[in-house]
Amino acid sequence: MITGENFIGRKRSALGKVVFSTINPVLNQENEWKSIEATSDEIKDATALAWSAFKVYRKTTAQERATFLDQIALEIEALGDELLEIYCVESGLPRSRAESERTRTLFQLNSLADYLRTSEWHQTSIDLAEPNRTPNPKPELRKTHIPIGPVAVFGSSNFPLAYSTAGGDTASALAVGCPVIVKSHPMHAGTGELVASAIIRAAEKLGMPNGVFSNLNSKGIEVGVQLVQDSKVKAVGFTGSIKGGRALFDLANNRPEPIPVFAEMGSINPVIISQEALKLKGSTWAKIYAESITLGTGQFCTNPGLILAIDSAELDAFTTELAQKLVNIESGCMLHPGIKHAFSTNKNELLKQDGVQQITEALDVEMNYADQTIITVQGTHFLSNPRLHQEVFGPFSLIVKCTNKEELLEIIEGLEGQLTGTIIAEENELDEVQDILDELQHRVGRVIFNGVPTGVEVCPSMHHGGPYPATTDARFTAVGIDAIKRWLRPVAFQNFPLKLLPVELK
Amino acid sequence: MITGENFIGRKRSALGKVVFSTINPVLNQENEWKSIEATSDEIKDATALAWSAFKVYRKTTAQERATFLDQIALEIEALGDELLEIYCVESGLPRSRAESERTRTLFQLNSLADYLRTSEWHQTSIDLAEPNRTPNPKPELRKTHIPIGPVAVFGSSNFPLAYSTAGGDTASALAVGCPVIVKSHPMHAGTGELVASAIIRAAEKLGMPNGVFSNLNSKGIEVGVQLVQDSKVKAVGFTGSIKGGRALFDLANNRPEPIPVFAEMGSINPVIISQEALKLKGSTWAKIYAESITLGTGQFCTNPGLILAIDSAELDAFTTELAQKLVNIESGCMLHPGIKHAFSTNKNELLKQDGVQQITEALDVEMNYADQTIITVQGTHFLSNPRLHQEVFGPFSLIVKCTNKEELLEIIEGLEGQLTGTIIAEENELDEVQDILDELQHRVGRVIFNGVPTGVEVCPSMHHGGPYPATTDARFTAVGIDAIKRWLRPVAFQNFPLKLLPVELK
Repeated sequence: MITGENFIGRKRSALGKVVFSTINPVLNQENEWKSIEATSDEIKDATALAWSAFKVYRKTTAQERATFLDQIALEIEALGDELLEIYCVESGLPRSRAESERTRTLFQLNSLADYLRTSEWHQTSIDLAEPNRTPNPKPELRKTHIPIGPVAVFGSSNFPLAYSTAGGDTASALAVGCPVIVKSHPMHAGTGELVASAIIRAAEKLGMPNGVFSNLNSKGIEVGVQLVQDSKVKAVGFTGSIKGGRALFDLANNRPEPIPVFAEMGSINPVIISQEALKLKGSTWAKIYAESITLGTGQFCTNPGLILAIDSAELDAFTTELAQKLVNIESGCMLHPGIKHAFSTNKNELLKQDGVQQITEALDVEMNYADQTIITVQGTHFLSNPRLHQEVFGPFSLIVKCTNKEELLEIIEGLEGQLTGTIIAEENELDEVQDILDELQHRVGRVIFNGVPTGVEVCPSMHHGGPYPATTDARFTAVGIDAIKRWLRPVAFQNFPLKLLPVELK
Repeated sequence: MITGENFIGRKRSALGKVVFSTINPVLNQENEWKSIEATSDEIKDATALAWSAFKVYRKTTAQERATFLDQIALEIEALGDELLEIYCVESGLPRSRAESERTRTLFQLNSLADYLRTSEWHQTSIDLAEPNRTPNPKPELRKTHIPIGPVAVFGSSNFPLAYSTAGGDTASALAVGCPVIVKSHPMHAGTGELVASAIIRAAEKLGMPNGVFSNLNSKGIEVGVQLVQDSKVKAVGFTGSIKGGRALFDLANNRPEPIPVFAEMGSINPVIISQEALKLKGSTWAKIYAESITLGTGQFCTNPGLILAIDSAELDAFTTELAQKLVNIESGCMLHPGIKHAFSTNKNELLKQDGVQQITEALDVEMNYADQTIITVQGTHFLSNPRLHQEVFGPFSLIVKCTNKEELLEIIEGLEGQLTGTIIAEENELDEVQDILDELQHRVGRVIFNGVPTGVEVCPSMHHGGPYPATTDARFTAVGIDAIKRWLRPVAFQNFPLKLLPVELK
């Protein structure tokens, strides 16, 4: 049952006067439950509790934290149908998506737990002493990694489970010994509260310190601003817009003691299609890309929003076919009326730019549903107009018709940082795409060959990140096992007796 | 021969009108050569060259870059006596120190070269595909690390060789494929120019792209400010004051595209001495610490500036003995009249604080020479007065007399981030120092047992870093092999044909 209360550690609390509802975007009406925004005092209590919990939680064993993550997964599963139902009415996403996202969320928790049971995550290094070295003896040095402290996690709008309350940021921070304070996303506060209750239940069952987890409701930006400025918060995880992520990044860097912000923000995920691929498999790729562009109603950070190819009859044929396939896919409901509004506004802004042509026919969609759209523009226009580089969050893609390969390379080199870049080519063209790959990999975090950027595998070799503005820190991933590295820092032990060394260094 | 010119890539250039001299602090007079500050256009040329060099240099093999680093070491060695002489007259440091620092600089270059010849530095990870996995096939993912782009390196004042022109930052950036633009330290511009000429000679001999290295002279802050704001610069390495490091950090974060700044700044390097150690070995530790405090005239970032112990007769005896031993050590010349001035000013500022007592007798020293100083204060004063936490760069240490262990722990927990923390205790006290170690390790980058913080070993397990304000990024080290991680970022390759994969992923 949703009460609308915050969790300040274990304690349910609702001292505030700001009350808000979530919206069912399919029905375009408010859901019946209300959530109460956390007050300034509640935020302070949550961070003070997190700080005192850190002193205990950082000393728990990896095995104990692994059990905790597995228990969180069990408790989320035990929420059963209620969670799936609330998820759907707060996001407009279908039941099948709710189920698959829940599966992913549980998998993330379980695979981090499994990884904790190896001891690799400490990334230890040992240099033995050389007492007889001249001119100076070499000391013994042993290096391990320790948790950095309480982490503030900002839930995303587009993954109410997998990148929100108990999502990748929370799971990876808890994994390494950092308490977590979630700023719940206002679009799915009910979903967030249910998941938070599951985490609290797991913490209580396993005797984790009070304050290891808190969940704060927020309607506006105030809760997040206070949280990032709180001296007891030592890092921030965020998934959302460039504007929001940059604001948190600036706040965090302007603190007396700056802290790292891992913001995963916007990306248009360029896709380069070769002439041969268009000629031989244009139809196949049109079908595959129509599906990728509309997956999750286009509300994935890896949505292919930019397609680059050399201007040709084959490209025109591909464009037409892609547009046709796209409009034949049933249009989906967007996450929130605000997101639909932004989709329309941003799309219309692009349509007003010089040289832009809409290829998809105008669709008549229900309120809050997205009319999937393909537009085209010449390479020269794209090069000279940075507005055309803006992300349109939703089922949308811009096809850029390049005059020649030089222009294509110039466009890639001039792109802002991206999460992904994709190359589609035939096997006999590998030599010719080498220079494209060389430029592309220096603008993105992941390159894909003959595939789609949507679908982010949770595994050790995943890198879900990329140069600014795709993220605020290209050196770290938000998905996969290495996500834990965001919440750790090295510490070296010099000449310590065995007894005082942490267990992984003995 | 020193010409005073900048290196804009290979080209010597001196278009500017701002001319300055370095100072021989021993004689307290200007050295005879003049250096010419780089102009705005020269800076732009250097970064443009670095950017074009990056496109070539990033494709060199690790083996080629290893040869380059070894060649730089050879060329520096070939500078012979001239380098050592200029080093001494620009720093006031003795010849023996010039020699040992040169040895360290060459060792850093050679050991990075050796590490490049392993392929560990790529930190690769491979997940094979599972085409038959349900509900979705698992793609193949292979992850490696790539260089982030041109790096601006700010030479330090206190290590004219090992942490300046061809020091740890430059060597680690060049190692992984990042061009370097050095902003030479104004206090040792001549030393910097000689070393730069060695790097350029090595680059020319091995056919490295023009722009892989540039050296910019600067008198004021303008060159550094422009460099950090230049869009072609992708990261910054800095060793110096908190004020300087923070200013660069703020500039870098306020760019349209923020870039990482690795600033290694101030640290007072707390040392905790147990009652037993004072009782049994107080005299030994007094001797060892008198040497550590005065090493390099106290001008090391790991200088032990803060000693914490429980107030007792043994602590008083230790304090007296340390003070006596300290004043019996011959006083050393500081790096620059400005550094001597800051030493005196900061020391006097601390002496004015409530409860502070000077223990060392007043020394009559020559101009620019440091009068080594020990002061004491009660724990309550230290807790209530953050001014007492300020670093005094030079041969200086503050001894805090704590009422009891609780107060000692409270002081440790309240400390700003530090590079190092040291525990001195007897073997039978290990249980009692466990909680001290637990607090201490969360405030520092390296903990030392029964030793001194000075002396930073160059090896894989070293961590020379620490929470703010010791550095701007506690997750990375400025010393040792892992220093290369500052200039790399991950990139994942999904479903790529073998032919297009980088060699380390094949």
